[in-house]
Amino acid sequence: MEAKKHIAIAGAGLVGSLLSIYLAKRGYQVTVIERRSDMRKSKGYEGRSINLALSNRGIRALEEVGLAEELKKEAIPMHGRMIHDLKGKMQFQPYGKEGQYINSISRSGLNKVLMTAAENIGVRFQFENRIVHVNFETTELSLQSTDQKIQIEKYDWIIGADGAFSAVRHALQMTDRFDYSQEYIHHGYKELHIPANSSGGFQMEKNALHIWPRESFMLIALPNPDGSFTLTLFFPFNGEQSFEKLANKEAVQEFFQNTFPDALQLMPDLLQEFFHNPTSSLVTVKCFPWLKNNVLLMGDAAHAIVPFYGQGMNAGFEDCRAFNQLLDLHQDDWSTVAPIFQQERKPNADAIAQLALDNFIEMRDLVNDPDFILRKKIEAKLHELYPADWIPLYSMVTFYKDIPYHVAYETGQKQKKIMEEVLKTPNIESTWQQMDLKKIVDQLKK
Amino acid sequence: MEAKKHIAIAGAGLVGSLLSIYLAKRGYQVTVIERRSDMRKSKGYEGRSINLALSNRGIRALEEVGLAEELKKEAIPMHGRMIHDLKGKMQFQPYGKEGQYINSISRSGLNKVLMTAAENIGVRFQFENRIVHVNFETTELSLQSTDQKIQIEKYDWIIGADGAFSAVRHALQMTDRFDYSQEYIHHGYKELHIPANSSGGFQMEKNALHIWPRESFMLIALPNPDGSFTLTLFFPFNGEQSFEKLANKEAVQEFFQNTFPDALQLMPDLLQEFFHNPTSSLVTVKCFPWLKNNVLLMGDAAHAIVPFYGQGMNAGFEDCRAFNQLLDLHQDDWSTVAPIFQQERKPNADAIAQLALDNFIEMRDLVNDPDFILRKKIEAKLHELYPADWIPLYSMVTFYKDIPYHVAYETGQKQKKIMEEVLKTPNIESTWQQMDLKKIVDQLKK
Repeated sequence: MEAKKHIAIAGAGLVGSLLSIYLAKRGYQVTVIERRSDMRKSKGYEGRSINLALSNRGIRALEEVGLAEELKKEAIPMHGRMIHDLKGKMQFQPYGKEGQYINSISRSGLNKVLMTAAENIGVRFQFENRIVHVNFETTELSLQSTDQKIQIEKYDWIIGADGAFSAVRHALQMTDRFDYSQEYIHHGYKELHIPANSSGGFQMEKNALHIWPRESFMLIALPNPDGSFTLTLFFPFNGEQSFEKLANKEAVQEFFQNTFPDALQLMPDLLQEFFHNPTSSLVTVKCFPWLKNNVLLMGDAAHAIVPFYGQGMNAGFEDCRAFNQLLDLHQDDWSTVAPIFQQERKPNADAIAQLALDNFIEMRDLVNDPDFILRKKIEAKLHELYPADWIPLYSMVTFYKDIPYHVAYETGQKQKKIMEEVLKTPNIESTWQQMDLKKIVDQLKK
Repeated sequence: MEAKKHIAIAGAGLVGSLLSIYLAKRGYQVTVIERRSDMRKSKGYEGRSINLALSNRGIRALEEVGLAEELKKEAIPMHGRMIHDLKGKMQFQPYGKEGQYINSISRSGLNKVLMTAAENIGVRFQFENRIVHVNFETTELSLQSTDQKIQIEKYDWIIGADGAFSAVRHALQMTDRFDYSQEYIHHGYKELHIPANSSGGFQMEKNALHIWPRESFMLIALPNPDGSFTLTLFFPFNGEQSFEKLANKEAVQEFFQNTFPDALQLMPDLLQEFFHNPTSSLVTVKCFPWLKNNVLLMGDAAHAIVPFYGQGMNAGFEDCRAFNQLLDLHQDDWSTVAPIFQQERKPNADAIAQLALDNFIEMRDLVNDPDFILRKKIEAKLHELYPADWIPLYSMVTFYKDIPYHVAYETGQKQKKIMEEVLKTPNIESTWQQMDLKKIVDQLKK
């Protein structure tokens, strides 16, 4: 029998852990190398956001490795956006049809389940090992442990799934003809908190993603199983209204009082949290090639995106699923699979990167816009009448795992043009139900 | 008397050496740190192209430091492009008006003159010192010498003028909220050579930049003072016609015979050179901010561009001149000057980066296009009649040092639109001299 291929995965985060399961199931020897300590053993969790929106692309991958049922129990369905205005008045905007929803899930909870499941099928995790060098010629990693000693390990393949600030990608950047960009947006984010009420219940609607859209910035809230909400303030670093200006408790108190009065009432620890929690930045990373010899990037390491479509993890999980499918298709011939993988996934990664940037504007501003709301309503009707021929963009991205991101993006661009014309119709808000809706749908086929 | 500020300049290349002169003349203590050995003492010269096109922006800076006259003696004026067709037929296209020209100059010759001039006024050069760490909080550099020892040095300011693969910029990239991109084009380049004839004379027209434009690629030649020409083949790395395909002597010989027959006749060492000389890549680097605390980027380190406008060095020299002017204006208050410098220079850097990419298409393809040639002719006439109101783009960039690159770029975009309309006029090639040329010029003012 041929010796098992030995695969190193850099990064024990969500994508690295999931990929290790896929590969161990195929019979590979898999070692996951992680810079940090084992999060299952440490109390605090360093860095990254507390909860995430898991949707169909991610769920599909979890189903394939047999973990979807277990994890869904930990998740809270969110059926739509709950928009909070300045007076605390709320309006609910469903994400899709009845029964379509996204899931609020704990990042660390999910990560721990994936790591343990991986270990149970023989994946070896090497924690507290920093990658200090990647040898692309010999497929070797130089690993530095906490005692500062450096060990060189050789593998058959190395997968860089080590996130937005990937050490593997960083090594790749030093090689010739590697296209690379990292671009920050002007907004940062700060996580805040609404606790459960005294009896452990939710203080706002549980099954929604709450948004306080304020045009140039926003506050959002996702529910946690313990009855609390994790809030995230997306706010400019500098400028007229910015983190820079909220330099003391009085300024923060006044800003929340004027801007998010209903949320403020539910945040007894706001001022302490605001000055204790970090202000973090938001970056889009693009690069190409993802592959050099026997070293391949995946997930955020290849395509970190901003969080506004809730697709970062889902896109990374889809990478794992796509790679596994290609291994099926090409009898585990990695040299064939890896170049196809990067060619197929790159346009999808670019598309979801742009969609995520665009969705920030939708979430913080457009959700308040009567034209936008009407457009959503008309599109929902088009989808109801012609479910296969008109699928709203958000649904394609979030609920239709078989539509590639780049197809969703291109279709969405066409839909936008068509709907802009439709919305120019005089008195459209009262007459649209009488329009020839089939004709609108047919334009998409041109 | 206040102690002199100590300025470290990373990189003893063209920009670093010139900047050291500017700063030493202002009375600063200047140390230039260079990874390589002193090029004045070593025989071979590692890396980078052999000759460069020096034009007005660069000359202006050399004038300011009193080196222009000395250096012009080493330079060969090139008054225009000499276009070589497939049959070796030549056509001359002037760059500008009578008396306007660019200068072929030796990179290493120029660099050596700058270094020696700097040393003569007290600049200290530390060769064979690699920057392994930049401390942005304390303005310290960790320098590794050839004996592997690391020394930490503290300065008042650090200027990263260490080129396209800048170590200082690389350190900056590891800090938060640093936008960065490196993008390679599909073409690489290889340097080749036409020797002087047996009596030391030029084998082609001396005072021209020779181009063999072949649509998707090109060969160019610049004259050297010894009667030889340095040729550069800009050619795709991969594909139908590419370096990859020219894998043996027969293929190279046949390709040159079919594509550059007249040049081939003058290249006795082609085959040896072709396989001895490296195939190098071409990158555009953009980043922002250029400044963090007391560390500032300049030249290629801040904005590496492709070579097709001959402006890389000129843009870097203009950085030095602009910085020096700002020090004049703000009484050497660096904390005021540095942020203004990056704000003012960034749009110019972005503009010349785009112009350089655009000019590759002009050089390799458009120079053969009758419409393009006619357009040049009409624009030359417009400039002759209305010298202040219509300055062709190439002239703005190359001969008008007081027009910022970004203004040249924007004006060029407008000119292009106007000329595209003009060229649609029926029988324009025979009628343009009868047109109301004033009307064309006036459109630019709108």
